[in-house]
Amino acid sequence: MPKISEKGLSMPSSPIRKLVPLAEAAKRAGRKVYHLNIGQPDISTPQVALDAIKSCEATIVEYGHSAGNESFRRGFARYYQNMGVDVRHEDILITTGGSEAILFAFMVCFNPGDEVIIPEPFYANYWAYAIEAGVNVKPITSNIDHDFALPPIEAFERLITPKTKGIFISNPNNPTGSLYSKEDLERLAAIVKKYDLYLFCDEAYREFCYDGEKCCSAMQLNGVDNNVVLIDSVSKRYSMCGAREGAIISKNKELIATALKFGQARLCPPFYGQIAAEAALNTPQSYFDAVHHEYVERRNFLVGELNKIEGVYCPKPKGAFYAMARLPIDDSDKFASWLLEEFSYKNQTVLVAPGTGFYFTLGQGINEVRLAYVLKIDDLRNAVECLKEALKTYPRRKVE
Amino acid sequence: MPKISEKGLSMPSSPIRKLVPLAEAAKRAGRKVYHLNIGQPDISTPQVALDAIKSCEATIVEYGHSAGNESFRRGFARYYQNMGVDVRHEDILITTGGSEAILFAFMVCFNPGDEVIIPEPFYANYWAYAIEAGVNVKPITSNIDHDFALPPIEAFERLITPKTKGIFISNPNNPTGSLYSKEDLERLAAIVKKYDLYLFCDEAYREFCYDGEKCCSAMQLNGVDNNVVLIDSVSKRYSMCGAREGAIISKNKELIATALKFGQARLCPPFYGQIAAEAALNTPQSYFDAVHHEYVERRNFLVGELNKIEGVYCPKPKGAFYAMARLPIDDSDKFASWLLEEFSYKNQTVLVAPGTGFYFTLGQGINEVRLAYVLKIDDLRNAVECLKEALKTYPRRKVE
Repeated sequence: MPKISEKGLSMPSSPIRKLVPLAEAAKRAGRKVYHLNIGQPDISTPQVALDAIKSCEATIVEYGHSAGNESFRRGFARYYQNMGVDVRHEDILITTGGSEAILFAFMVCFNPGDEVIIPEPFYANYWAYAIEAGVNVKPITSNIDHDFALPPIEAFERLITPKTKGIFISNPNNPTGSLYSKEDLERLAAIVKKYDLYLFCDEAYREFCYDGEKCCSAMQLNGVDNNVVLIDSVSKRYSMCGAREGAIISKNKELIATALKFGQARLCPPFYGQIAAEAALNTPQSYFDAVHHEYVERRNFLVGELNKIEGVYCPKPKGAFYAMARLPIDDSDKFASWLLEEFSYKNQTVLVAPGTGFYFTLGQGINEVRLAYVLKIDDLRNAVECLKEALKTYPRRKVE
Repeated sequence: MPKISEKGLSMPSSPIRKLVPLAEAAKRAGRKVYHLNIGQPDISTPQVALDAIKSCEATIVEYGHSAGNESFRRGFARYYQNMGVDVRHEDILITTGGSEAILFAFMVCFNPGDEVIIPEPFYANYWAYAIEAGVNVKPITSNIDHDFALPPIEAFERLITPKTKGIFISNPNNPTGSLYSKEDLERLAAIVKKYDLYLFCDEAYREFCYDGEKCCSAMQLNGVDNNVVLIDSVSKRYSMCGAREGAIISKNKELIATALKFGQARLCPPFYGQIAAEAALNTPQSYFDAVHHEYVERRNFLVGELNKIEGVYCPKPKGAFYAMARLPIDDSDKFASWLLEEFSYKNQTVLVAPGTGFYFTLGQGINEVRLAYVLKIDDLRNAVECLKEALKTYPRRKVE
């Protein structure tokens, strides 16, 4: 039997999805399971996008342009221009989700053995794509006691070696909900310029900023046009995760031209997803206002209630729809499994994402969980109540 | 300015797409251009698939299973079972087009520096995916004088080194239209077993077989369950290239489980494409009969007419919808550009795919072109007439 590749063996199993079979078993056993584990919002896709699909009159579902339909790219560029960011359609390559944008970014910018610095905790799939491209991840820990603020620039600088080719951040941050300021980004811009690095910025959650804050796009930084590589996605913005439409965006023409060669190899982004996503660009402001209101309510409720529980600390996220909480537990992996396998309160339980899955450094996140506030307040109330009871009875309770 | 990766620099530009700007210029200049260059059929997508999209009542375009929707996988498995091939839904991982299936196959099975043997001419994107995975392509030339028959097994065996991990074929073949027999496949099975290799078989054109022939699937080979990796796609079968739905299929459980880890990293295949593709599994036989009849007519016409032109030789393809033809020319790249830039007959010209783009060996295919018979007979008639006139006036005519 021929061997599986080393990459295949080292690819992480999704830290979230390995719990799914346990959740299914719990459901089969009759328990209600609240899914706080995954960023699948319960928010409807904008009607304008759904309508565009229903009224699509195409009779041949044919290949499109490898960079994405031009009308979609032009519309996407206008979306940026409307928020004061100078992006033109030729700076945009439409990808099959933000996922493919990350893959292309790594493939275009890194040689195997090169290093990328990523503040941890980070979205677990960054690691998977680093493995696919043969890139070594150098994590830099952001601390829950500092509310997951961007680590000091000196800490980044200390990690830079001749192999370092880039710094990768997500802003607003998944999983922490941190929102990096313009000054944070300018500090990063200064060192990517100084050391001639790429600055990758995943802004999939750009529209999800709270408390009057705005997301400063990495595309708004001065003097680093050739360094900045933006990762974007329509998945969260328009609650259309399944459409699989994202983009890699850069002013670096050689980079976009090279990414297009990878794009040509996979022919084109999905046909229907592009139709839905292009239409979604015309989503009325009232949709976003309602969504924003809903998430603020959910966040305030979830974080407020969590911090009332003894031994729990949850920084108040300024963006995205995730919160990382420290719990009085020995091991978040064991706790997450225990919740599904052994715990029940009023015949209910909770599916959480263990913190360890978001840290590269072994041992980090052991007493943290990520909670996605993608459920309605009533469900969140039941979920938090479950968690509170669970922490009372969890046999391996441990306070920091 | 940070450097582009070595992979990025070595990725081939699509041999076909680089002619597209020339074709656009020709059109702007008022000439009619017949596109024989790309496998985008003019055949309608089955109505049952279009209807499924129009009647989709989902209000959240959400993530699906990373292996593809279970109902789609079960339906896909029944499709195989109906043709007598023992495939179960757990052997199938739905991918974003056959393209992603190729990428996953390479990533799962090869370490960087490993070698894959591929009969040339071959689908150019195999090379692109080999580059992405760091795999070295070892081509083995199949000859137009032997009507692109599978090269003798001894020729494969001579290329096998300790680095060889697999043999990759497409059947029916793109770009040659060759159909490999059960005996051909059994000979390949014997050597993949002997040397413990993977046998990758891209059967995207399985339904396109002519003259009463049937495609023998690699999944029907005995004793090589752990070696065979099937690449499939709905793109051509249901004329829905833009849906981006394909599959990697194998009885090798470790391989499928590993491919799923790559699948989890990119979350899920496209939502709408899966709906269309699952519905397309119920396409009535009358659709395929009509399509089959149409392609046979086109093939017979195109190949018949080509072989009437002095100095032209075009083997009669037994499958797919491509023909490779040898022309009395010095250089197929120059000829293809000349057709668009300088040639005009009755204010018309032709876009062909230069043969060189399908060969890995430098210099091979220099006097060959690939012609996709994806146009109606009347258009094919005009296109062939153009080619005939072009070959009379091409200034660098050269007979083999």
